[in-house]
Amino acid sequence: MLKLYVAPGTCALATHITLAEAGADYVAEKISFKINQQNSPDYLAINPKGRVPALVTERGVLTETPAMLAYLAQRFPQARLAPLDDVFAFAEVQSFNSYLCSTVHIAHAHKLRGARWASEESSFADMKRKIPETMAACFALIEQKMLRGPWVMGEQYTICDPYLFTIAQWLEGDSVDINAFPKVADHFKRMSERPAVQKAFAELAA
Amino acid sequence: MLKLYVAPGTCALATHITLAEAGADYVAEKISFKINQQNSPDYLAINPKGRVPALVTERGVLTETPAMLAYLAQRFPQARLAPLDDVFAFAEVQSFNSYLCSTVHIAHAHKLRGARWASEESSFADMKRKIPETMAACFALIEQKMLRGPWVMGEQYTICDPYLFTIAQWLEGDSVDINAFPKVADHFKRMSERPAVQKAFAELAA
Ligand SMILES: N[C@@H](CCC(=O)N[C@@H](CS)C(=O)NCC(=O)O)C(=O)O
Ligand SMILES: N[C@@H](CCC(=O)N[C@@H](CS)C(=O)NCC(=O)O)C(=O)O
Repeated sequence: MLKLYVAPGTCALATHITLAEAGADYVAEKISFKINQQNSPDYLAINPKGRVPALVTERGVLTETPAMLAYLAQRFPQARLAPLDDVFAFAEVQSFNSYLCSTVHIAHAHKLRGARWASEESSFADMKRKIPETMAACFALIEQKMLRGPWVMGEQYTICDPYLFTIAQWLEGDSVDINAFPKVADHFKRMSERPAVQKAFAELAA
Repeated sequence: MLKLYVAPGTCALATHITLAEAGADYVAEKISFKINQQNSPDYLAINPKGRVPALVTERGVLTETPAMLAYLAQRFPQARLAPLDDVFAFAEVQSFNSYLCSTVHIAHAHKLRGARWASEESSFADMKRKIPETMAACFALIEQKMLRGPWVMGEQYTICDPYLFTIAQWLEGDSVDINAFPKVADHFKRMSERPAVQKAFAELAA
């Protein structure tokens, strides 16, 4: 049994959806950011980074979304969530996910987590003001250069898809109109309809 | 023949060293940040993100350090640069590299690239002041919770090692004393002595 630590509205959703897509035997355990549970001694013993998600396996705890997504694709090969037999195509999947993790997620994080990188209120406000511009620039690149359609990698659904969906969910709150990116908007709609996505949302709401 | 686009002092060094470790047939092509070559039309046609590194293969261009490192480990299995037959251990490698990419590299980037995330000079100065604190916090976590020794993953050298070395190189310029982290300092010294590292430096200086 795999256990995924999650919190609503976070990047943990990508791994959560992937557990459901893989047909894994898992449980999603919610922690509360309102009471700063991510920095409680109990949680820091699981993930010393003080972040979600964290995936508890028989062999130990894994963190970092791209690593967990590739792990699930490799552990549940029958679910065909990545091109496991094609080294180049697998690298393309990893590259897309690394971009989401290191650039797009980070751009978004400057809205609420400015204190990670600066100290003054004026800097936090400045960072917040720039969010619509940085997020729109990232999604313009995704729309024009990355998303092949109908899925990120083309005909085959992969671990790139729940991750893109998870971050695209943030656009509305970041004051970016998803309809400016028709392929992303179409992808978002089709993702919303997948049973695995609805299962993850139901578990988060429970 | 693989071609890697690089620039001195950048994260491209990790992939450059790995090409040398793998015994790959490659050429390292330098671009100049001084003349903003990363944003020239020619280079944007190769990597629309306007960043280094970018790896040109027979099948197409790859970007994102963690993706390129895993690609080289899988393409050159005889070099034994990752635990390719152990899905969990491979995920641990990916997790470490994703942390470097999405957290440690990003912390460092706030020194010179503040304009990615804010607009005011006062914010850039604020970000710069915080670099020693954020980089030291990242390396404390690496020292205490991640680096097993003698190599990142223990007895076996992997694609985590050149990446850690590449980022540890930045500590001095970030006003962080590497000797506060004895395992990192020892790792850094042993990395410096590897022929692949010296080969990459020689090619960068040429
Ligand atoms: N690079 C990590 C980032 C994880 C992360 O930043 N998670 C956020 C939620 S989206 C978090 O737990 N934030 C809590 C905090 O900063 O206190 C990943 O991709 O998994
Ligand atoms: N996530 C990318 C980041 C690449 C990156 O930011 N490269 C920097 C050099 S360390 C760059 O090219 N900067 C040029 C610029 O920002 O104009 C990776 O890990 O490869």
